[in-house]
Amino acid sequence: MVNFTIENVLIAASDDYATVDVQIVDGRIAAISPNLQVIGTAIDGKNKLLLPGFFNAHTHSSEMWQRGIMSVFPLELWLAELYDFAPLDPEQIYLGALGTAVETLLSGGTSVVDHLVLIPGLELETIAIAVRAYTEVGIRAFIAPLIQDESLTAGIPSGESAQSHEPYFRSTAATLEIIEEAVRQFHRPDEGVSILVAPTGIQLCTDALFEGCIELSDRYNLCRHSHLLETKAQEKLAQEKYGCTAVTHLKRIGFLSDVYNGLRQRTTLAHCVWLNDADIAILAETQSTVVHNPLSNLRLGSGIAPILKYRQAGINVTFGCDGASSNDSQDLLEAIKIGSILHNVTDSDYQHWITPRQAVEMASLGGAKGLNIADKLGSLTVGKQADLVLYDLTNLSLLPRTDPIGLLVLGRPTNVVDSAWVNGKQIVADGKVTTINVDQLRQELFNRSQWETKRKSETVAQMEAHYRTVMEL
Amino acid sequence: MVNFTIENVLIAASDDYATVDVQIVDGRIAAISPNLQVIGTAIDGKNKLLLPGFFNAHTHSSEMWQRGIMSVFPLELWLAELYDFAPLDPEQIYLGALGTAVETLLSGGTSVVDHLVLIPGLELETIAIAVRAYTEVGIRAFIAPLIQDESLTAGIPSGESAQSHEPYFRSTAATLEIIEEAVRQFHRPDEGVSILVAPTGIQLCTDALFEGCIELSDRYNLCRHSHLLETKAQEKLAQEKYGCTAVTHLKRIGFLSDVYNGLRQRTTLAHCVWLNDADIAILAETQSTVVHNPLSNLRLGSGIAPILKYRQAGINVTFGCDGASSNDSQDLLEAIKIGSILHNVTDSDYQHWITPRQAVEMASLGGAKGLNIADKLGSLTVGKQADLVLYDLTNLSLLPRTDPIGLLVLGRPTNVVDSAWVNGKQIVADGKVTTINVDQLRQELFNRSQWETKRKSETVAQMEAHYRTVMEL
Repeated sequence: MVNFTIENVLIAASDDYATVDVQIVDGRIAAISPNLQVIGTAIDGKNKLLLPGFFNAHTHSSEMWQRGIMSVFPLELWLAELYDFAPLDPEQIYLGALGTAVETLLSGGTSVVDHLVLIPGLELETIAIAVRAYTEVGIRAFIAPLIQDESLTAGIPSGESAQSHEPYFRSTAATLEIIEEAVRQFHRPDEGVSILVAPTGIQLCTDALFEGCIELSDRYNLCRHSHLLETKAQEKLAQEKYGCTAVTHLKRIGFLSDVYNGLRQRTTLAHCVWLNDADIAILAETQSTVVHNPLSNLRLGSGIAPILKYRQAGINVTFGCDGASSNDSQDLLEAIKIGSILHNVTDSDYQHWITPRQAVEMASLGGAKGLNIADKLGSLTVGKQADLVLYDLTNLSLLPRTDPIGLLVLGRPTNVVDSAWVNGKQIVADGKVTTINVDQLRQELFNRSQWETKRKSETVAQMEAHYRTVMEL
Repeated sequence: MVNFTIENVLIAASDDYATVDVQIVDGRIAAISPNLQVIGTAIDGKNKLLLPGFFNAHTHSSEMWQRGIMSVFPLELWLAELYDFAPLDPEQIYLGALGTAVETLLSGGTSVVDHLVLIPGLELETIAIAVRAYTEVGIRAFIAPLIQDESLTAGIPSGESAQSHEPYFRSTAATLEIIEEAVRQFHRPDEGVSILVAPTGIQLCTDALFEGCIELSDRYNLCRHSHLLETKAQEKLAQEKYGCTAVTHLKRIGFLSDVYNGLRQRTTLAHCVWLNDADIAILAETQSTVVHNPLSNLRLGSGIAPILKYRQAGINVTFGCDGASSNDSQDLLEAIKIGSILHNVTDSDYQHWITPRQAVEMASLGGAKGLNIADKLGSLTVGKQADLVLYDLTNLSLLPRTDPIGLLVLGRPTNVVDSAWVNGKQIVADGKVTTINVDQLRQELFNRSQWETKRKSETVAQMEAHYRTVMEL
């Protein structure tokens, strides 16, 4: 492992900035102070800002193949279109994970939570390929294999009609066996790859699947990840399915973080748009983390998650890009910007609004907290692992010089990531990812695709009339 | 003037794409068709998308100096802070206009409407400097000198209290004389520089100022530009000031477009967040154009403008970045993306949502319509002036290949503008602005600024208690 010292770099210090040297020894932050001795390689930090790496705390990497082309649909119909054209080639999984990693890194992220869509029949291979891609790039990876045990149509409320659904093609037990095998083969947190249990959500999972995931999570000390109440349709569905809110039900079956056994804050919940005040109290009580995906929530018309309420309730909130088909990018700085300013229209008292410094903390420490690793990551703290990003403050998009964090969060920074390290290993230098050949990636993505206009999804054609009826459109 | 032919370029064609050649002769589009003869310089359009240039239809260029540092405040307090630290050096005006032009161009814009803040006592000099900057860059400029004749505190409703305000430092007549002189000196539409009459809005302007602007507009055939109902405070203020809505009042005094004299669609109104249904009907009837500034509206917590309602009422809508202190960028593609997807949360029927192709038309033809030049600009039409942008579809942020316009509008494109032309003159080539030295601009912006943390605005300290009272915070 290469030790290094970043000299004369700007860091955030209470309400101000400080110019310091930062020593990295054996992958950890060894010292932060002005005028330190240079240990290892000297890196010039002049006119640069050093921040802890951000977490892209919810995405689906293979959606990169369908970005730009998905219809302007709400989630339920969008999902039908997505699955009709889902990539089924392992090489696409590999390239999608590489692309997700590269875009995340070049927008300040050093960790990615990939709620990974599995190719039917090639589930473990899909996970293995994603592990390979992330390991090659060197980004810290939290792979959350997306599982369900109900068919897609079950995700839409029945309303007054009697709906029947095809059984899911794979048994709940077989699905849980795949996850357990994935844990055995790939869960290596110390090497930068973790497996999460990740039922897709109440809309497509039975209690048996949730309970199996809880059992695996307890047995192997795994974090838990799920979508939660992304759409109004899911809110309706929860009432049909459980006769109570989804949050009440998830608490009852024990999926939310269990604050009593010492394993705190290990459940991250993507979206959380349609929660009521009692649900919010439950998330606070169980120390669950909300992953806010503002661009996806807007793109799919899901709604505006009540993020200011969550913060006031003391709930940990962090940001995700969500999959590139509902965003349609993996630019984490964009998600952080919109995820900050969007909420100003939901509360007229500006004293409640998210400041740029708060947004940075949500994106870094907030991500680490949700994954139960805040003691190791998420801030520039001596002793923590060196997942760091160095921003070039001489870039036109960060000029003129004002407040660097204000420019970074509220502006539209482009090409501003100069360097990034994960666990002390440099994987971005001079604005380029150094671990893989990005030009070759670009060429592969180009060669394996073609320009096309809107496609017709057969499943959407089958589902749309019922969706419109039950949603009263 | 250099003639040229773009060969084998992708263009939007009804619901599909076509690969064509495009001939530009004497600054105009002479032919669009496959297999054309090359006239003038041949330009390789392979793997590129050609679109009409977009309009950055509302901005304030000198705000570039304060981007990143403004407090998270609503408009009224934000404005007080902004003016306490407004740049007063003509060189800053010049550099701010250059920066605004460069960022607009590199995000697809070929026209900018600069609601230009004037340095007190140097009003004509300020306008002259902006004209020089935009002319040097070569972007099409619509300079709308920002005028008012009431003091800043008059922009906040009185509520139950009796408020008195300092008189404005310059008389209404003197202000109108400045504008008339600016028109004489700088209004040269055929050379790419137009002057607009641009009272800042009902919150800080007397009827005498509006009427003087109307008179100038009629006499010199000038377009009209103003802020309109950006905040809830302005809605209240209009009721206090006029006893009716601001739109009703502006119609009564004749500021909205006059559809009876043949000079249609020459009034563009920035923001339009707080309009009621009767107001919407008036905008439709007067063929006024709404300039939507979604990022600014979120950043300042102004609200979500009812853009889908405007579109349903047949009102022309286009996009602006607004000044860089409330955005905090001049990336037009970001404004178009957020200005499209933001509204999906305001209407559950996805059939009303803005599609990427509609967004492109709003940003191009919509801008031209609002400035009464839709016969000359805003679409790829034979005979129209060649304000064109060529996008590189091999850029990683536009891969894999799917729907190019979907990728451009819904993604987060970076470094994708390959070339841009205004009136047939190339001003961006190989992704670089060719008319000015951008590296020198960057250096100047760097040298004339310093990193700083939040400043204290004295005016905010004076106004805040009253603001909180009257807004019931």
